[in-house]
Amino acid sequence: MAQSPTRAADRVDETRLWQRHMAMARLGARADGGVNRQALSDEDIAARRQLIGWAAARGFTCAVDPIGNLFVRRAGRERDLPPVLTGSHLDSQPSGGKFDGTYGVLAGLEVLEALEDARVTTRRPIEAVAWTNEEGSRFQPGAMGSAAFVGRVQLVALRDTVDRAGIRLGDALDATLAATPGLARRALGFPVAAYIESHIEQGPLLEADGKVIGAVTGIQGSRWFAVEVTGEEAHAGTTPLKIRKDALKAAMAMVAALEALMADATDVVRFTVGRFDVSPNSPNTVPGRVFFTIDFRHPDPAVLQRLGDQVPALCAAHARGCAVSVTPTFDAPPTHFTQGIVASISAAAARLGLPHRDIFSGAFHDAKFLAEVAPTGMIFVPCARGISHNPAESAKASDLAAGARVLAEVLAELAEQ
Amino acid sequence: MAQSPTRAADRVDETRLWQRHMAMARLGARADGGVNRQALSDEDIAARRQLIGWAAARGFTCAVDPIGNLFVRRAGRERDLPPVLTGSHLDSQPSGGKFDGTYGVLAGLEVLEALEDARVTTRRPIEAVAWTNEEGSRFQPGAMGSAAFVGRVQLVALRDTVDRAGIRLGDALDATLAATPGLARRALGFPVAAYIESHIEQGPLLEADGKVIGAVTGIQGSRWFAVEVTGEEAHAGTTPLKIRKDALKAAMAMVAALEALMADATDVVRFTVGRFDVSPNSPNTVPGRVFFTIDFRHPDPAVLQRLGDQVPALCAAHARGCAVSVTPTFDAPPTHFTQGIVASISAAAARLGLPHRDIFSGAFHDAKFLAEVAPTGMIFVPCARGISHNPAESAKASDLAAGARVLAEVLAELAEQ
Repeated sequence: MAQSPTRAADRVDETRLWQRHMAMARLGARADGGVNRQALSDEDIAARRQLIGWAAARGFTCAVDPIGNLFVRRAGRERDLPPVLTGSHLDSQPSGGKFDGTYGVLAGLEVLEALEDARVTTRRPIEAVAWTNEEGSRFQPGAMGSAAFVGRVQLVALRDTVDRAGIRLGDALDATLAATPGLARRALGFPVAAYIESHIEQGPLLEADGKVIGAVTGIQGSRWFAVEVTGEEAHAGTTPLKIRKDALKAAMAMVAALEALMADATDVVRFTVGRFDVSPNSPNTVPGRVFFTIDFRHPDPAVLQRLGDQVPALCAAHARGCAVSVTPTFDAPPTHFTQGIVASISAAAARLGLPHRDIFSGAFHDAKFLAEVAPTGMIFVPCARGISHNPAESAKASDLAAGARVLAEVLAELAEQ
Repeated sequence: MAQSPTRAADRVDETRLWQRHMAMARLGARADGGVNRQALSDEDIAARRQLIGWAAARGFTCAVDPIGNLFVRRAGRERDLPPVLTGSHLDSQPSGGKFDGTYGVLAGLEVLEALEDARVTTRRPIEAVAWTNEEGSRFQPGAMGSAAFVGRVQLVALRDTVDRAGIRLGDALDATLAATPGLARRALGFPVAAYIESHIEQGPLLEADGKVIGAVTGIQGSRWFAVEVTGEEAHAGTTPLKIRKDALKAAMAMVAALEALMADATDVVRFTVGRFDVSPNSPNTVPGRVFFTIDFRHPDPAVLQRLGDQVPALCAAHARGCAVSVTPTFDAPPTHFTQGIVASISAAAARLGLPHRDIFSGAFHDAKFLAEVAPTGMIFVPCARGISHNPAESAKASDLAAGARVLAEVLAELAEQ
């Protein structure tokens, strides 16, 4: 028989959590209702100040590390133990929504407040973190803060990255840190007891399935390719089809063959051709060149290998007399989250009477990097029709609060271990 | 038994004809060996002056009509009879070659000179014409001079057409006419006894077939369409394929279905998708919109109708949940040239011992419009690998001269009728 929820979960305040989302959404607000809050921009600084202000009002201490990851700490009974971390990011896509990333940070803060409100102490400290530059829209690559935290990228190299306006990341970072003064300084990569990230699903499965909580079992792996097809430009009126080297029709034959290869009755394979450039792209000229991209994702490394390895040969087999080159551009194995944490999330949802299911993440998250250094899990809540990276991104206040209650349960449990 | 060639055909001078091509190619020469001579540009004016200069040196008179069509006249014995016309155009594509259009004008001038050299008189005048703006690269539509000549378009409306720099056609035309002063003025659309256009094939058939002369039987018809496919942008990592509305995959299914519809063992159908624009064209986003063009051509109006009429329904049938709109953008029936002229071209080639065949034109030419008002035919000569509209366009001096000799035979014959 299920135990009762903790007092902390009972003190999660749906209205407070929702209003904070709306307050954050004003920082970088777009006229269409969306949010444009680029990493290390004035809007990002404003969001960081807002978070610091809310933390200070409740007596939580804030700290920052050299890449600008911002930590809000609620002390534990044993102050020197590695903390349990929870969070996500405050930066957005240029045409982003109100919930992607922001929810994970605000849900973390909400749990800290709920613990205060419930006068619950924990053995370990719990910290809500806002990782720097998860989106990677202004400075590449994304997930920069979490990648630097776990040592996957080196800050000294990142500082010379420039945005489209030619501004160095190092300068934008220094300005951001100067604009949020008086914070404790942390080193990169301090020990972490566990990491839990709350996030909107950014996909349609929970909504379609009538579930409120997704216990995320992992993040699928990705193999990306760039394909260049070189045929021969020719006059559309005069050139017989049999002697053409039509790069567009060859590329289409390749995509059709790849679609057949990737066909999956279980609908787990993600296969996308998102970019497709035709040259000279003139109505009356047979295309001489096509460049296209392949984004292939799957949770199972064996499937990633088996199908992904066939991509170059399959493209070559459908080249129709054109030259073709296939270049791998990204290869990330699947991440599997800590089984005990996935189980804790499911158990907490069950205790709280929330419909839940296991789910695999189709998108990347900072949790992908944290999983390399600490027991890690994620909690998904539904978003309308799965739409994200879009001003139309939408989530229900009650679902956001439900996710925060599950988070409170899991954090309280982990912080006692 | 075949008659002997006329004295005029014997006086066609291969070297003179070739050197004039090379002289013209310097006017608008590109560094890559090609030609960029836009209609009514400084380069076009230079080419017109060159033609006028060559004509004047030989005592031919020049005249111009209100759209700038330029006529070089060799008088006939009966001066008031409608002339036999021959010619083509002097403007080029932005990355054009040395022969497209220019050959037809210079072959006409060469015949006038050969008639002089042979001291042959003709009953009717013969005129070599350079039609204004056949290519339509700078000012749309193309074949403007010949279309205006036959009354298919109205000059007063064309004058307000602007190029990409905002220059009005009317102003560019006035400047061109002012830069070539002292010419007799003609009205548009005076009576024409017959029209013969010499041109490089712009296709590979003559070369592949080992023929030097193509007796062009007509110009195939065209039906062009613009197709707009509207799906839904989605996250490439999170969105299951079954619920996607992927505009790119829908468009590709449409093109594949159209390819099957247009399949033709005789290889006469010309079916081209030349422009294909994907939006947002981002590697990790399911495309929400595709715009593509269809260029479909065939000599047989029944085939044009039967296959072309199926395009909208076939696109709709493969929309895969996307919205699709199909818009006809151009519909031109096939042109059939005058049988007697086609026969005269074949007979002349035979007399001259030149390998020849009947051929249908895949491309448009000014002859398409002249055929509406006068007995009309075309003579094709080979170009290397069929390449045209390209700096690599190439033709042999001997083939150009062979075409001019056939032209001399046919013009001399027509000018006696």
